[in-house]
Amino acid sequence: MITALKRLLVGSPMATAQAKQERLAKIPALAIFASDLMSSVAYGPEEILLVLVLGGTVALQFAPAIAVSIAVLAAIVATSYWQIIHAYPSGGGAYIVASDNLGTLPGLSAGAALLVDYVLTVSVSTASGVAAITSAFPALYPHRVGICVGCVLLIMLANLRGIRETGRIFAIPTYWFILCMALLIVAGFYRWMTQGPPPPPATVAVVEPLSVLLILRAFSGGCASLTGTEAVANGVQYFQPPESRNAGITLIWMATILAASVVGVTFVAHLYHIVPQPEETVVSMLGRQLFGRTWIYYMTQAATAVILLLAINTSLAGFPMLASIMAKDGFLPRQLAHLGDRLVYSNGIIICAVVSCLLLVIFQGSTHALIPLYAIGVFGAFTLSQAGMVLHWSRERGPRWRLHAVVNAAGAVTTAVVVSVVAVSKFVHGAWIVVILIPLMVLGFLSVRRHYDTLRGQLTLRGFVPPKIGRHPVVLLVGGLHRGVVTALTYARAISPNITAITVDLEPTATARLQQQWQEWAPDVPLVVLDSPYRSVMQPVLHYVDQMEKQRDGDYMTIILPEFVPARWWQHLLHNQTALLLKTALLFRKGKVAISIPYHLDR
Amino acid sequence: MITALKRLLVGSPMATAQAKQERLAKIPALAIFASDLMSSVAYGPEEILLVLVLGGTVALQFAPAIAVSIAVLAAIVATSYWQIIHAYPSGGGAYIVASDNLGTLPGLSAGAALLVDYVLTVSVSTASGVAAITSAFPALYPHRVGICVGCVLLIMLANLRGIRETGRIFAIPTYWFILCMALLIVAGFYRWMTQGPPPPPATVAVVEPLSVLLILRAFSGGCASLTGTEAVANGVQYFQPPESRNAGITLIWMATILAASVVGVTFVAHLYHIVPQPEETVVSMLGRQLFGRTWIYYMTQAATAVILLLAINTSLAGFPMLASIMAKDGFLPRQLAHLGDRLVYSNGIIICAVVSCLLLVIFQGSTHALIPLYAIGVFGAFTLSQAGMVLHWSRERGPRWRLHAVVNAAGAVTTAVVVSVVAVSKFVHGAWIVVILIPLMVLGFLSVRRHYDTLRGQLTLRGFVPPKIGRHPVVLLVGGLHRGVVTALTYARAISPNITAITVDLEPTATARLQQQWQEWAPDVPLVVLDSPYRSVMQPVLHYVDQMEKQRDGDYMTIILPEFVPARWWQHLLHNQTALLLKTALLFRKGKVAISIPYHLDR
Repeated sequence: MITALKRLLVGSPMATAQAKQERLAKIPALAIFASDLMSSVAYGPEEILLVLVLGGTVALQFAPAIAVSIAVLAAIVATSYWQIIHAYPSGGGAYIVASDNLGTLPGLSAGAALLVDYVLTVSVSTASGVAAITSAFPALYPHRVGICVGCVLLIMLANLRGIRETGRIFAIPTYWFILCMALLIVAGFYRWMTQGPPPPPATVAVVEPLSVLLILRAFSGGCASLTGTEAVANGVQYFQPPESRNAGITLIWMATILAASVVGVTFVAHLYHIVPQPEETVVSMLGRQLFGRTWIYYMTQAATAVILLLAINTSLAGFPMLASIMAKDGFLPRQLAHLGDRLVYSNGIIICAVVSCLLLVIFQGSTHALIPLYAIGVFGAFTLSQAGMVLHWSRERGPRWRLHAVVNAAGAVTTAVVVSVVAVSKFVHGAWIVVILIPLMVLGFLSVRRHYDTLRGQLTLRGFVPPKIGRHPVVLLVGGLHRGVVTALTYARAISPNITAITVDLEPTATARLQQQWQEWAPDVPLVVLDSPYRSVMQPVLHYVDQMEKQRDGDYMTIILPEFVPARWWQHLLHNQTALLLKTALLFRKGKVAISIPYHLDR
Repeated sequence: MITALKRLLVGSPMATAQAKQERLAKIPALAIFASDLMSSVAYGPEEILLVLVLGGTVALQFAPAIAVSIAVLAAIVATSYWQIIHAYPSGGGAYIVASDNLGTLPGLSAGAALLVDYVLTVSVSTASGVAAITSAFPALYPHRVGICVGCVLLIMLANLRGIRETGRIFAIPTYWFILCMALLIVAGFYRWMTQGPPPPPATVAVVEPLSVLLILRAFSGGCASLTGTEAVANGVQYFQPPESRNAGITLIWMATILAASVVGVTFVAHLYHIVPQPEETVVSMLGRQLFGRTWIYYMTQAATAVILLLAINTSLAGFPMLASIMAKDGFLPRQLAHLGDRLVYSNGIIICAVVSCLLLVIFQGSTHALIPLYAIGVFGAFTLSQAGMVLHWSRERGPRWRLHAVVNAAGAVTTAVVVSVVAVSKFVHGAWIVVILIPLMVLGFLSVRRHYDTLRGQLTLRGFVPPKIGRHPVVLLVGGLHRGVVTALTYARAISPNITAITVDLEPTATARLQQQWQEWAPDVPLVVLDSPYRSVMQPVLHYVDQMEKQRDGDYMTIILPEFVPARWWQHLLHNQTALLLKTALLFRKGKVAISIPYHLDR
């Protein structure tokens, strides 16, 4: 039944041989990887304005300049990544590039930062998308957390079905959103030119004096627009061959559209004196002002909501991909490197979705609390990978290596400056969590790796003396005398001549009757009666087994547990789970083998 | 570690021989069994007023009359139960009396009604107790659900420690509450006599015309005061010998105090024109009017809160007691009849507490939604047990049997009328849920009983032919060649000469290497390679085992799974749980024995 449900939700299993087909042309690839980057247009400009508004009307004048500087930053980052994609055609995220060139610790730091970032992107995008919906329909506001979680789970299912199908699902909304943003910007400029500037703004009260720190914090907020660049570099192998070329072109397209949109939206918001409000998003206010509550406004809101909700797809594709690479290197549990039966890394997808849902529930679907958390991770990873590339070029010394190195060095310096700015200006606003979390994660990765490393040594056959089984003592646990017990006894006789039966005395009359019956059925097998003053079955049995340990011959001892298997699931509730508990307890005692002999009931 | 925590919370285990000591003198017994009955003084009068207020000022005049009729009802029910306690000295709740005299179905109906009632009492008492706290301290209102759940879990722990200790814990607050109610009533009458009547009330608007149905609904609400009477009859064996006499006297005390309090509180509320409000309880309003916000008011509120919170103890003692009786009769899972290591029915206590907490969370700590649900169950059970007693007396024909029969018949008729009144007047207010739930529970009880009945037949040794083990095929699952696998192979050789090794081909190069190594280590054991197009280990293994089934010799086949046991708990996360999943799947296939051979890692 569970299998049937799984098939219905994620589709039939796919053979390993089908793997090569799951590649993406540029058009759907742009849709998949662009949704994260593009969608940040919905909250990037807003984060800039939200900080600036604290400085009052004068501070808000800086918004266009900050938007332009973020566009320049996008150009630098994209150029650097374009080089990385070509240097690492098999997929080179910050983790691989930093590990390769700077060593394990920087690589793991970059990996940790990106894993955190993917999860946060899912949460922030979902929260923002639902904010776009509740801006248009305030009645839905009380249900926002439920809507958030439902959306994440839906996109998780789409991802579990496989990446190509999700590409197809997502192409239309992504292009629709780009169109809407273009429309918004063009309409804004056009109306401004034809109808002249809108009435002068109401003065905004000053909460905090205008300072360099305020401007820097606004810039840090706007940097959230750049998350998602990494996903393309990690996902190069999803592209159709030639992978690097296709991925590189996609990246440049994406960065260009992004920069144009961020600058455009911020400019138009500036022209129309938009002041951010807690109840409504900046894009919604802008749309209302330009189009009124017409179908164009609702279409824009819908596109914004849909792209934000789909943006979580980037991370749900990026997180498992990176986790699988780190798992193959032994820094994460191996299960994350297993392709699921739909040829996707199902475990990684599920973990990312579940953690994001938890964050959404804990933060009650609020965007702004999470945004400071992740800019630092993103730009930290950028810096590490750019720095790694500088070393890469200077080692390889291929044609034009100096130019390449200079480009990446410029990227590294720029993003390092951004990290410092974010870390300093947003430290008390939540950046400190990331500063603590990333080293902890790196320690975790190292422990996992150490376990796998020592595992090989512990399991090697070199110098290994196989255990002696010897006279092979077998202990048979008897409750009462019935078909299940006789079956188990028959099995015990088949595997050893050295059998002892034990029973726990819970009720003296029942025990006396059992002893008498036992004499008739199995006079050759001794029956030991164990006392149980506290009415427990577990304790006396474990105690007896530990006692036997001292006098046994050979390295292994077997405990046989007769177990009947009910015909229907609910009947399990009507029987003690003592066998299961005993098996679990015995698993942790050396040299014990616990065997359940099932006896199947008919009804 | 878990064991240590359990010891800390519930105390050291107690031997079976200590059981007799756990008996109660009348004074602590009154405290335990009275807390439920007495505590309903806090919400019984309020439920009467809450309905009457819909009929406006005129309807509120009926409150004292309704209170008196409930006192009369209490006298009738108590007298009937006093007879039951003497006729069933080993403990005779409605379930036993109805089963004994009316047959299985009425007995099970009574049992179902009481189990539901116990759970609801826990929820309602907790919600009411927390309402008393939030009446005094409105700031705590937003945290009410958390406080409710915390309280239930705390009392659950007290009960898991054992009944005598809980008796001692609860004696003081119960008597303190009785004192507070007496003080409230006496102060009310005294002030009314010395200072004359308070100013005439503001007119209350009429929401619903005054009708017989409205009066009946108010009476139904007030009937909630009588829940808890049953607990004494079920718990007779908790009393010190002579059990029946002590239990009977306790019951009469309880009923008298209850009737006096309900009538007193309702009268005083009537004198002072108290109109129920959603934000404050009637007792709180009364206390404030009589004492002001002085320490006497706060003491009364505290006593009310404490007794209501302790009332859940009655149910947490009553539910497991009844569940254990029904489990011994085979109508509920046997685990409910097992005495825990503190000589209490721990499983029943935990189930009752957990379900109540769920109700509290679902209903967000609101009392009134739950009250209509349980009056019908309580009075249905009363009716069934009284009717059973009438038959009991007419069969036994002991001295004065006619008098006894008449008393119980009067009780049966009265409570039957109450059931009809509640069912009709509260049907749409939630009574329908109980009307559906109880038959479903009875069906469940019958299925459980049928399972246990057929179990004996399925397990009988009469005519049983023990299975053949024959050449005993053993299948060894091999992933790679390491110490764990060699250990498992050694074990396999010890239990059978007929071994086949199988491996699932997940990666062709690893498989080829394994085949080569296998030739060196175990050339005598054939190694079968299974294809896995969908990268699953489970499916090919299960398919192979099912194929083998057809050609095997003997009735049982063994599958050996080498499993290494990590040294630390978190390392389990770093390995596949394939062995566990395979063992679970194999358990449900007939004639398969799955054995894990543990190999313990050192670090």
